[in-house]
Amino acid sequence: MIDKTTEITSVQNNIVKEVTKLHQKKYREDFIIVEGEKSVSEALEAGLNIKYAFSSNKTLLEKFSAKLNNAEVYLANEKVMEKISTTESAPNILAVVKKPEYDISMFKNFKKIVLLDGIKDAGNLGTIIRTAAAFDIGGIMLFGECTDEFSPKTIRSAAGNIFKVPVVHCTAEQLKEFKKSHKMIATVVNSKNSIQDFNVKSPYIVMFGSEACGLCNELLSLADTSLTIPMKEGVESLNLAISTGIVLYEIFKHQLPKSFIA
Amino acid sequence: MIDKTTEITSVQNNIVKEVTKLHQKKYREDFIIVEGEKSVSEALEAGLNIKYAFSSNKTLLEKFSAKLNNAEVYLANEKVMEKISTTESAPNILAVVKKPEYDISMFKNFKKIVLLDGIKDAGNLGTIIRTAAAFDIGGIMLFGECTDEFSPKTIRSAAGNIFKVPVVHCTAEQLKEFKKSHKMIATVVNSKNSIQDFNVKSPYIVMFGSEACGLCNELLSLADTSLTIPMKEGVESLNLAISTGIVLYEIFKHQLPKSFIA
Repeated sequence: MIDKTTEITSVQNNIVKEVTKLHQKKYREDFIIVEGEKSVSEALEAGLNIKYAFSSNKTLLEKFSAKLNNAEVYLANEKVMEKISTTESAPNILAVVKKPEYDISMFKNFKKIVLLDGIKDAGNLGTIIRTAAAFDIGGIMLFGECTDEFSPKTIRSAAGNIFKVPVVHCTAEQLKEFKKSHKMIATVVNSKNSIQDFNVKSPYIVMFGSEACGLCNELLSLADTSLTIPMKEGVESLNLAISTGIVLYEIFKHQLPKSFIA
Repeated sequence: MIDKTTEITSVQNNIVKEVTKLHQKKYREDFIIVEGEKSVSEALEAGLNIKYAFSSNKTLLEKFSAKLNNAEVYLANEKVMEKISTTESAPNILAVVKKPEYDISMFKNFKKIVLLDGIKDAGNLGTIIRTAAAFDIGGIMLFGECTDEFSPKTIRSAAGNIFKVPVVHCTAEQLKEFKKSHKMIATVVNSKNSIQDFNVKSPYIVMFGSEACGLCNELLSLADTSLTIPMKEGVESLNLAISTGIVLYEIFKHQLPKSFIA
């Protein structure tokens, strides 16, 4: 309850220093920063363990405090909020949350999986997680060197959906195992198959390359089939998050009841 | 030619100061900054007047110099490039370009127009311009208070397509005129019409609201019809650029030759 609340007024406070460290990926081994009411609520709904919660708004802290049973709750002033937050204008609430850990074995049960090869842009990754939640994707696999799925920018771009879609890292060896149960679909710019023709009935993994390089040869050689988004001639490509959005939408349509399709 | 080239080594140089001012919107009345080989090439292709060009790479400057007839060309050191650029790592070439001016009357001839109401995110606007180029949209109208369509971030996100799609600002009065020739379509979250049913034959304007507020009442009251993107229940919304991407893709499909559709 709110009587547990301690005030923090100095940016030199040790807990403030501990939280600020989490701005850097190398310190986010166990805990991550979650900013804003929407994302903190989502972390609670997902049953994640919250270590600290900070706000300069007492009413908001009280609203959350009943749910923040084991968390240390701090009433922080504006300066402290600015220091610990990763955005220009500090959020109304900031929590330090135990990083969720997903096992790739749970992906075996997912019918629809998205794979991202070497995605570098944190905003794109967050947007793709948000889109995956909207179109009922089981989970996301990251292959190769990717941006941190729990960076503050990714969490922000996921807009309250970061904990709704599990994200795991995978190797080529693991994918070879998945190939036994899942069809591997490569999205490329020059396939003869339009995504409109998409009609895969078995479980599948749909793979997207990085903006800079496309899909690597290792993944292309694993693909059972490939797909292209039709577009105007002479245009080079779409933004990666846009391509993913269009493909996931097109896939999602296939599971709609007929009455929804004109 | 390259013998016109002057070296700039000091960030105190007056031209450097003049260019750096263009980082702020209030100074971008007549000229804008265009960064990177791709976007500078695009400005040249679009026939835009280039005032200055800067690079620390002599070979690159020589490559461009033949096309930069009336421009003042400067060989700049790394420090100067960092000072005048708007990105963390300076681009290989930076140009100061006459801002293109589009008249809304040219939009009368466009069959497919996108309208964005109060768009605030520069990255989203650039991405939407890029997507509009891919899906053959005539032009983009901005309504209400919007982010600057020629900010460096918008130009960067458009990825070499910023000058391919004209962007104009419009008023409600002008839209009432357009309504005589163009069907007004509102994209909303709760329409009974799915975008899959899209089948408008006449010229049209498809309208998207801001992420925060959706379409304003003034625009909703102008709409002839509305459309929704089907998605999983319980998910609030998609990112604005993703929604736009999906709708423009769905619209584009209708102009494809039948052979492309399975």
